[in-house]
Amino acid sequence: GALGGLGLGLWRRQQAAMAASEEKDEDEKEEEELRQRFMAPPVSGLRELRRQRRELRSRMELLIMETQGEVCRALAALDPGASFAVDTWERKEGGGGISCVLQDGEVFEKAGVNVSVVSGLLSEEAARQMRSRGKSLKAKDGKLPFCAMGVSSVIHPKNPHVPTMHFNYRYFEIEEADGTKQWWFGGGTDLTPTYLNEEDAVHFHKTLKEACDKHDLKLYPKYKKWCDDYFYIKHRGERRGIGGIFFDDVDSPSKEEVFQFVKSCAKAVVPCYIPIVKRHCHDSFTPEEKLWQQLRRGRYVEFNLVYDRGTKFGLLTPGSRIESILMSLPLTARWEYMHTPPESSKEAEILEVLRNPKDWVH
Amino acid sequence: GALGGLGLGLWRRQQAAMAASEEKDEDEKEEEELRQRFMAPPVSGLRELRRQRRELRSRMELLIMETQGEVCRALAALDPGASFAVDTWERKEGGGGISCVLQDGEVFEKAGVNVSVVSGLLSEEAARQMRSRGKSLKAKDGKLPFCAMGVSSVIHPKNPHVPTMHFNYRYFEIEEADGTKQWWFGGGTDLTPTYLNEEDAVHFHKTLKEACDKHDLKLYPKYKKWCDDYFYIKHRGERRGIGGIFFDDVDSPSKEEVFQFVKSCAKAVVPCYIPIVKRHCHDSFTPEEKLWQQLRRGRYVEFNLVYDRGTKFGLLTPGSRIESILMSLPLTARWEYMHTPPESSKEAEILEVLRNPKDWVH
Repeated sequence: GALGGLGLGLWRRQQAAMAASEEKDEDEKEEEELRQRFMAPPVSGLRELRRQRRELRSRMELLIMETQGEVCRALAALDPGASFAVDTWERKEGGGGISCVLQDGEVFEKAGVNVSVVSGLLSEEAARQMRSRGKSLKAKDGKLPFCAMGVSSVIHPKNPHVPTMHFNYRYFEIEEADGTKQWWFGGGTDLTPTYLNEEDAVHFHKTLKEACDKHDLKLYPKYKKWCDDYFYIKHRGERRGIGGIFFDDVDSPSKEEVFQFVKSCAKAVVPCYIPIVKRHCHDSFTPEEKLWQQLRRGRYVEFNLVYDRGTKFGLLTPGSRIESILMSLPLTARWEYMHTPPESSKEAEILEVLRNPKDWVH
Repeated sequence: GALGGLGLGLWRRQQAAMAASEEKDEDEKEEEELRQRFMAPPVSGLRELRRQRRELRSRMELLIMETQGEVCRALAALDPGASFAVDTWERKEGGGGISCVLQDGEVFEKAGVNVSVVSGLLSEEAARQMRSRGKSLKAKDGKLPFCAMGVSSVIHPKNPHVPTMHFNYRYFEIEEADGTKQWWFGGGTDLTPTYLNEEDAVHFHKTLKEACDKHDLKLYPKYKKWCDDYFYIKHRGERRGIGGIFFDDVDSPSKEEVFQFVKSCAKAVVPCYIPIVKRHCHDSFTPEEKLWQQLRRGRYVEFNLVYDRGTKFGLLTPGSRIESILMSLPLTARWEYMHTPPESSKEAEILEVLRNPKDWVH
């Protein structure tokens, strides 16, 4: 019959072709789904990332793209009048990024979610910044080939009862003179309220703790403390906010395990923050409360420009995109000479917590 | 006669006593005059400064006090509704200062004129800041006894057609391990307009050039260039403003000659700036012009927090008065993502000059 006519060999080839085609369809469907979830085509190209999907670099790039999309969609849903401007940019030394910024909305004064995937040679100056973090790196002719990728975001809402939130998850690879590859992850999520709301603080820290606890019970307490220590405005004797988690140079127990941990943290961003925005974005506020917010924004600028290593590193990296780095600065800020809130005021209450960090989750 | 009775010796003693008393009266008159010209009693005490009036340290302290008074009076005269708040402060490690701040006036958004006279031991970290400026200093146990004094000021007006002005004149003495004393002067006066007004720029630079030319024709061109190089916001590829003069580590030809030069510069502050304020403080302006001013204020903050050595040095010096150091920041500032003024606009015109400094005086 027909089957016999075609022969078993041909039939098998047809079956294989159909399976391959189905697989291709499946592939295309997945690609299409990813494309819809991302804010723009990934720096390394979707096809290439899918092809190398087993590589950690690819998985991390997909994760940061996914996180950018998730966060932007969640924020945009709360600020229907505004929308994210999406800029893709290339770095002539290698790599590029996607910056999503919503500015002067109803709910958000300035919300930026930035992905960057850059590679090239690390300058001696930038390498020194690394070394100060405890990494000793042997360079060839003072230059180190590197690859750095991450998602980073700062959300400054308009209403002083909605806190500012920052998160950043990043992965580094660096090649030493002898060809050894060093890799590490860093990141964190932290909250900067203008006024203290204990319920919000507990919700935020608890959500982060749950994400950490899935991996190791030691992580939350360690990274909570690291966050309080890192976001310290030394000249003011204050922390920038009420903390969260922060870690850097993490390269154990294994690449896979750290990646899974970072993934849990990235997935926790929306549940950490969005409920707090929803709860307060329609709260009424006084001009005095808005003024206090502006003064706190000034402190935010002080931390970011004087102390933040990411910002310093960015400003020193040749060809880095300044607009994306300084996206973290608020739309507006204020500095008053000798401003001191009255004792027992709501303003003094938050200052007390910034001076003496609390444990929000036991 | 009576004269004979008193004896020539007694008469001479009486004459001497009368002369001394007249001299004392003269002294008290001078002291009283100084007291009225100063904003507060000098850190080292007026009596002590007058007693050691031949010492350069005393003469410099009197000069900075006098400059503070002159500038504050000239500014206050233009903003009759507002007045300078005067704070005197002590530094527990030695010395202190006088901060004069006028905030939220009709003409000035924030005007600060600060005198500080501090002494003590320089920390290793602060000493490193010095060394980076070309001074190699041999410390004893990592500590260097020092004395630093200066007057420093930033004036941020409300009207975007009135430029921001900064000046600072300072004197350093530092004692090395072997007892050698190093000394040097530094300082400068520079202008940061929101919009370019060529007439103002020429007046400002010409007045500075005249002050310099009295001492050495080489000074103005040298210090004008130094100013353009120093106030450079590297990550933006822009200068902070249209410059003026700037110098540091100046210790030749002689202490006396450098002091006389610094004195001429300090005396030039009021004639440099006040006519410009008078000319424009009643100019009308649009909300768009105010917005552009706020964005330029943001750049001012970037320079001061990221690059300014005086600020960095201050933030690192233990016991330094943060409020006086950060007095230089504007009352309000703004950061917009990707703000680019249209071609051939007034905003693009000033940017062009900030990117490519001009010679204002030939």
